[in-house]
Amino acid sequence: MAIITLLTDFGLADAYVGIMRGVILGINPAATVVDLTHGVPPQDIGYAAFELGTAWRYFPTGTVHVVVVDPGVGGERAAIAARVGEQFFVAPDNGVLSYVLAEGPAAVYRLTERRYWLPHTSHTFHGRDVFAPVAAHLSLGVPLHALGQPHERPVTFPLPQPRRRPDGTWVAHVIHADRFGNLVTSLPASRQPLDGVRGARIAGRQIDTVVRAYAEAPEGALAILEGSAGYLEIAVRNGSAREKLGAGPGVEVQFLTRN
Amino acid sequence: MAIITLLTDFGLADAYVGIMRGVILGINPAATVVDLTHGVPPQDIGYAAFELGTAWRYFPTGTVHVVVVDPGVGGERAAIAARVGEQFFVAPDNGVLSYVLAEGPAAVYRLTERRYWLPHTSHTFHGRDVFAPVAAHLSLGVPLHALGQPHERPVTFPLPQPRRRPDGTWVAHVIHADRFGNLVTSLPASRQPLDGVRGARIAGRQIDTVVRAYAEAPEGALAILEGSAGYLEIAVRNGSAREKLGAGPGVEVQFLTRN
Amino acid sequence: MAIITLLTDFGLADAYVGIMRGVILGINPAATVVDLTHGVPPQDIGYAAFELGTAWRYFPTGTVHVVVVDPGVGGERAAIAARVGEQFFVAPDNGVLSYVLAEGPAAVYRLTERRYWLPHTSHTFHGRDVFAPVAAHLSLGVPLHALGQPHERPVTFPLPQPRRRPDGTWVAHVIHADRFGNLVTSLPASRQPLDGVRGARIAGRQIDTVVRAYAEAPEGALAILEGSAGYLEIAVRNGSAREKLGAGPGVEVQFLTRN
Repeated sequence: MAIITLLTDFGLADAYVGIMRGVILGINPAATVVDLTHGVPPQDIGYAAFELGTAWRYFPTGTVHVVVVDPGVGGERAAIAARVGEQFFVAPDNGVLSYVLAEGPAAVYRLTERRYWLPHTSHTFHGRDVFAPVAAHLSLGVPLHALGQPHERPVTFPLPQPRRRPDGTWVAHVIHADRFGNLVTSLPASRQPLDGVRGARIAGRQIDTVVRAYAEAPEGALAILEGSAGYLEIAVRNGSAREKLGAGPGVEVQFLTRN
Repeated sequence: MAIITLLTDFGLADAYVGIMRGVILGINPAATVVDLTHGVPPQDIGYAAFELGTAWRYFPTGTVHVVVVDPGVGGERAAIAARVGEQFFVAPDNGVLSYVLAEGPAAVYRLTERRYWLPHTSHTFHGRDVFAPVAAHLSLGVPLHALGQPHERPVTFPLPQPRRRPDGTWVAHVIHADRFGNLVTSLPASRQPLDGVRGARIAGRQIDTVVRAYAEAPEGALAILEGSAGYLEIAVRNGSAREKLGAGPGVEVQFLTRN
Repeated sequence: MAIITLLTDFGLADAYVGIMRGVILGINPAATVVDLTHGVPPQDIGYAAFELGTAWRYFPTGTVHVVVVDPGVGGERAAIAARVGEQFFVAPDNGVLSYVLAEGPAAVYRLTERRYWLPHTSHTFHGRDVFAPVAAHLSLGVPLHALGQPHERPVTFPLPQPRRRPDGTWVAHVIHADRFGNLVTSLPASRQPLDGVRGARIAGRQIDTVVRAYAEAPEGALAILEGSAGYLEIAVRNGSAREKLGAGPGVEVQFLTRN
């Protein structure tokens, strides 16, 4: 078993992702390559970091995750490979691993050993020329430390931190809107269990409906629930909270609690 | 060989589908996972049922098809697994298997055996927590009856039934519009062979061109032909019948016949 | 190892691509199937030819590439299989292989041996009924000449040829715009290395910034660089040259040189 995942902002209208698969399979024909998503908005490092943060723990030991959202390609930014727990990550050193590196100690190396890259390396497509071949070699058992030099301080951005007011209200933010228009907030249910929530305020609206599942909410009504990634979420049953509220990532949301 | 297909309304902008693959590969590393489509409009059970109906017969014996269009997730709807012929289906019990179950006798079980699910089960993402792991276990040879209790009457919606008037005219409906703007109707060519058709009426237009292949129609003209799923279809060569007619699923279409 | 790539204009909202995978896996369960892209604009043969031209050389020996952009399906156009170098190609004979066939001598056969097709062949979906099964058989080692008769003159369109004026200026055209809005031109860096370029004119604008990597350009400024497919390219750092210039494929671009 050798699983390699791909997470990029390449979209699917071009063959860029397919080309990365070709490079990987040329080095490790037995690799199973899985798309996380290629729909990251162009150059949106925060979006990519969040998606990776929700996904990686569902993969088996030994999986290699490749992230290519790389506005600095060909410039001074480092390219890195990291191990967190028993999984591996290959990415530009620009913050895309922020959620993953927050999970615990990591071994991080700067990619400098060109023998694990394609022979010709462009200045514009390191996904093909550097990250894909390095991931393929990792999946074949090449040790992390063979890829380059230890890299002391990988770039991370501060994760959104909800804060609690003296009256018990949480001040959080929308960190992601998914395909259904569900608004994922920065407040983990592990810090504020859903059964202690009595309402929310967002975009000038007050929401009083707290449910466990989408189907428990009245059709078309705004509701608060625990989303699948473990964060409190604002949703509309069979509708889009994003559209109904005209609100997306970055917008403040306050959660009112029972105590 | 263990093939698992995925059909959802998750879109590709989030990692939801990739996460399901991670869960499957963690249980059955040898599974080959195939996307049918993830472009089902949100919560559109009829669209998903049609897509599955056109696709499943092209897969080998033993394939496990997973459908997650699941507006009732976390509520009272059952989760089921079924065998039709020599293929398997895992889905919410909400009608998404309507076309498949119309094909003949099926063994259907309600998923209740939690040992085949992920240890922690959310109320919002059973694709990840229930359907993906159950499909992976099925692909490893776990028998259907081990997954839960027999389920007597799975939910199905009535399939669109074209009716024939005394004058021989068929009254049918558009049931699907594909990417090219081809309008698939509810009239199977097995009930009305193309060579007996002399025209159609749809959206106030009369169509007199009947062709075997798109390339036989005049450029830009509306034409009637037998589509790839075996239904009569309205199409425009190198154009979109959907746009030209301003018509989509649900619109009535009449086929005029020779007798 | 048996790799089969798929390149179509089917989009991802329907199950057409999944169905092709089902057919392939039914014939060769060990095949690894890779998507190049399914986002080719409907019937855009030139777009597909370009995408294939950028991708195929990154795949291992023995890979079978299937291209289905096929407005003439069911009509008089031939269906062909070709070998170029150590790779195989299966496609309608309509020019989609133009970039590949320009690379050198090819063996080309017209597909006539119906025993390598599905038993029932439609007039509307040869991707499923002809190209997928032929590719699967090729991947199992069926020799090219068993598939049909030698095909003397496959259809190709003339590749865009930049021309050089006496003053050294190159007159080229935009041949592709990618997801990021980068404008790929018809001038290969192998004919005009980037370090000899001092500027460009396109859509009434003069561009004087020449960089090796996107990150070297000022934010938001138009720049000239060598793109990942080896052609000179017009790009905007963290932005879209396509939008900024209102220019896409077909538009003329002139490159000013140092001599």
